[in-house]
Amino acid sequence: MVSYADIAAAHERIKAHARRTPVLTSTTLDAMTGARVLFKCENLQRMGAFKFRGAYNALSQLSDERKQRGVIAFSSGNHAQAVALAGRLLGIKALIVMPQDAPKVKLEATRGYGAEVVQYSKSEAREEVAGKLAAERQLTLIPPFDHEHIIAGQGTAAKELIEDAGELDLLLVPCGGGGLLSGCAIAAKHLLPKCRVLGVEPAGGDDATQSFVKKRLVTIAAPDTIADGARTPSLGKLTFPIVLRYVDDMITVTDQELLRAMFWIWERMKIIVEPTGALAACAVLEKKAAFQGLRVGVILSGGNVDLRWAAAQVDKAQD
Amino acid sequence: MVSYADIAAAHERIKAHARRTPVLTSTTLDAMTGARVLFKCENLQRMGAFKFRGAYNALSQLSDERKQRGVIAFSSGNHAQAVALAGRLLGIKALIVMPQDAPKVKLEATRGYGAEVVQYSKSEAREEVAGKLAAERQLTLIPPFDHEHIIAGQGTAAKELIEDAGELDLLLVPCGGGGLLSGCAIAAKHLLPKCRVLGVEPAGGDDATQSFVKKRLVTIAAPDTIADGARTPSLGKLTFPIVLRYVDDMITVTDQELLRAMFWIWERMKIIVEPTGALAACAVLEKKAAFQGLRVGVILSGGNVDLRWAAAQVDKAQD
Repeated sequence: MVSYADIAAAHERIKAHARRTPVLTSTTLDAMTGARVLFKCENLQRMGAFKFRGAYNALSQLSDERKQRGVIAFSSGNHAQAVALAGRLLGIKALIVMPQDAPKVKLEATRGYGAEVVQYSKSEAREEVAGKLAAERQLTLIPPFDHEHIIAGQGTAAKELIEDAGELDLLLVPCGGGGLLSGCAIAAKHLLPKCRVLGVEPAGGDDATQSFVKKRLVTIAAPDTIADGARTPSLGKLTFPIVLRYVDDMITVTDQELLRAMFWIWERMKIIVEPTGALAACAVLEKKAAFQGLRVGVILSGGNVDLRWAAAQVDKAQD
Repeated sequence: MVSYADIAAAHERIKAHARRTPVLTSTTLDAMTGARVLFKCENLQRMGAFKFRGAYNALSQLSDERKQRGVIAFSSGNHAQAVALAGRLLGIKALIVMPQDAPKVKLEATRGYGAEVVQYSKSEAREEVAGKLAAERQLTLIPPFDHEHIIAGQGTAAKELIEDAGELDLLLVPCGGGGLLSGCAIAAKHLLPKCRVLGVEPAGGDDATQSFVKKRLVTIAAPDTIADGARTPSLGKLTFPIVLRYVDDMITVTDQELLRAMFWIWERMKIIVEPTGALAACAVLEKKAAFQGLRVGVILSGGNVDLRWAAAQVDKAQD
């Protein structure tokens, strides 16, 4: 299992390359909640999301031989860009497997970071496409969350937040596959044993919440949510036990609540977050727990959102 | 004339109340320009713009008698919210004179900060309405830019940027009435005598550029630009001589360039800037000067933009 020492070591590896993202506050939100809320702005991280932390930590630990052969990842989201950017910085060739209908902006961003992109059609299973390519070209597969180096890398976000913000009573973290949540929970419980850690996920894909409650891994084949970063069918073999051990509770939010929270952050805090990135903040804005009098850490996990899509949602958020 | 000592004294007055806003960078922009660009994020300032600095500095220096009687300002923009918020923090009653057709969101924000709002119709001159109310209620008028305490307060933005970012070869500052530009120019020339200071204004309201070139105050009665914070008809009696003395050059950008720059910042830097707030960054993105090899400071002055309006512009920005 990943330990705090792994997170501290990951931090040494990545800190010259990842941004130490700012911790922002909102006087308005503090007045609304009676809490002191401290936002760790991973939307301002390189390539726009915390994913860079884990990817860089994983790629930098590959053997020279693996580095030379290159890496492969399948993702249509932030993990793709993270592996592409980490690969470029480390001089490692990255091959990214993306669906044929992936948004053009994401294709271009991934290629912009120097990765080769292979697209697959809906009739193919992406794991098979990636597996075949990995075997053919002897590439190392970099999984999006269920890997010790990825988990340790993501935990550095909470380490930095606590170092910069000080004491926290509560830490809220978005949850998809649980890489960020488990890494942050390990860091928080080590640095602040009394700090409660809450995971937040979309109601339309509440597999982690169900798994947490039932204490067995629940899978939701096709999560239905605008939070595309949390559309993972289930927690992983590594992340599930960590979540069970270190996370105190899980919270769910609806897509409508999430949209409202996302635009509240845009409008009041003047920063762009994507739907998944707003999950933890949404739990605070919707008062899904007791916050009065507490110091509350919130991870804003990413800001990669298509502006045309968002523009079309502005009116819906007011409903 | 305002001196650096006034700016340093202003900084002492405001620093416990204003946010020390972060300095952000963009690796992508640095690669595009060959420069190192350091953004001072005043869009993340309290009430969403640098205006809070000047307003707090001015209000905090009023005599006890004037404080007790209260202040008045006419503005439909960021100055209104700045005076309202500074007034609330200092226990000074603020009366804001706003046009009858001011956006509801700005009315509410100003009232939300505890100010009384008086609206006037298009047939009335706002100066007359404000003057009459000021006389009747014995209120002190707080001008939006042409006041020594306002100029000194705005200069603290450049002071902080230089303290945090270090050496700069170039500093770019948005220009409306010139309060921010003149304060920042004084600070920059004192701290970094070799740093060149450039003001940036919209082409549809280039009165400051014309004034700078012709060395006489040029007025444009109704500037035509989406940069609402730069729709001032001219520089002020105090700001014009400071601009002439301390600013090295003026640059103009079109509304179309500005819109593109604004959304570039949203999309790539994950922060919300308003059109006026993007002026200085636009000059860099559009390569309006030579930046290669330089360390360039850019003031992002504000982020108060109506999301519905912005949503309707997303497509236009791509034209």
